[in-house]
Amino acid sequence: MIVVRALLFDTFGTVVDWRGGLISRLEEWGKSRGIDTDWPMLVDGWRMAYPPSMQRVRTGEREWAVLDVLQRESLLSLATALGIKELDDAAADEMVRMWHELPPWPDSVAGLHRLRTRYVIAPLSNGHVALLVRMAKAAGLPWDAIFGADVFRHYKPDAETYLGATALLGCQPHEVMLVASHPSDLDAAAKCGLRTCFVSRPLEYGAGRVVEAIPEAGRFDLMVDGLDELATSLGC
Amino acid sequence: MIVVRALLFDTFGTVVDWRGGLISRLEEWGKSRGIDTDWPMLVDGWRMAYPPSMQRVRTGEREWAVLDVLQRESLLSLATALGIKELDDAAADEMVRMWHELPPWPDSVAGLHRLRTRYVIAPLSNGHVALLVRMAKAAGLPWDAIFGADVFRHYKPDAETYLGATALLGCQPHEVMLVASHPSDLDAAAKCGLRTCFVSRPLEYGAGRVVEAIPEAGRFDLMVDGLDELATSLGC
Repeated sequence: MIVVRALLFDTFGTVVDWRGGLISRLEEWGKSRGIDTDWPMLVDGWRMAYPPSMQRVRTGEREWAVLDVLQRESLLSLATALGIKELDDAAADEMVRMWHELPPWPDSVAGLHRLRTRYVIAPLSNGHVALLVRMAKAAGLPWDAIFGADVFRHYKPDAETYLGATALLGCQPHEVMLVASHPSDLDAAAKCGLRTCFVSRPLEYGAGRVVEAIPEAGRFDLMVDGLDELATSLGC
Repeated sequence: MIVVRALLFDTFGTVVDWRGGLISRLEEWGKSRGIDTDWPMLVDGWRMAYPPSMQRVRTGEREWAVLDVLQRESLLSLATALGIKELDDAAADEMVRMWHELPPWPDSVAGLHRLRTRYVIAPLSNGHVALLVRMAKAAGLPWDAIFGADVFRHYKPDAETYLGATALLGCQPHEVMLVASHPSDLDAAAKCGLRTCFVSRPLEYGAGRVVEAIPEAGRFDLMVDGLDELATSLGC
């Protein structure tokens, strides 16, 4: 029996559908703006640029910057590379803010409501607090607290994020579980002593596209197919 | 017309009734423990010890410590001074944790629910995140985010708290309003450029006891008698 007091959640991919959400928003928005491009390709490229942009902060190659700043820079480079010329400053801002209003997976909101009856629940995201607050209000995510990377001025998988959130919750690492659809995130949390739950999100990168292999059984404390199943597993 | 995006709330006294809540919990708890003392006097003494205990952190006389640690030390000194001999470690821990589960004022929960429909709402308290999360769950306070002093490792009225929360919300100071029943807290926020709302809580220190004089009209942006009145003033 796993006994924890708090659950931390990766958000992009684990709780919300960044790819499906962005593509559908952008297709509609592009039409209203008269911008025609391969939106799925742009979204996939934008997401690919995300880890290296944070890596430059993590290594100290550049100073601390929140995700909006990194996403905006990545977007402008990508637009140039893809020959999209219509992106002025206001358009880029609107696109960056679409990351603040992503749709939850179908099981997320109901699962979180059940989980919060017995556990403290909070995002531990590479998004910043302001982004996560907007996301929670837009999607109806009933968090007890919000941990963005800017609270720690570190991006995951830096240990400062997992241990920082654990300390702010007044917990020991073994009393906290990270819930994520990305094995690399969970591995880093496990190294810090946290418990781990892998959530399978087979549609995260689009149907049929696998970016990280499904982890083998036993690698994490729990493996579930959604947050409703997690709630059931944890007795909620 | 006042236009802000976010409201930060002092908690002890402004949102919850620390004195009434502690006295009623302690009277009951004391009976079950066979500890008989003048609980109102102990609570008033405990509250008096609170600013100087934080002051020692603020001046650098001692290292950072969360409120539970300070409250526990103050309690043990006070118990010795008052001749209460029955306080073992477990009893002191239980008493300190009573600060985590204080009752809201009658207008607090309904007022916050109305305010959160149009504004981002969060505590900005000298309590720590873990304390504030427990308080929110116990009292049903529907915060969008939680800002405890441990996020900034500074106690109010240090500017780092007001400006730190403002930055994490992605706001400019003039876009944020501090809501508090303590003029000194509001004065410090105003110096940082925040808007201010004084909430009158005439029963905070017990009926008929005035610790800070009611501020004169015009000193703060708003003056209200409760969070429901604040919601009405702000168009919620």
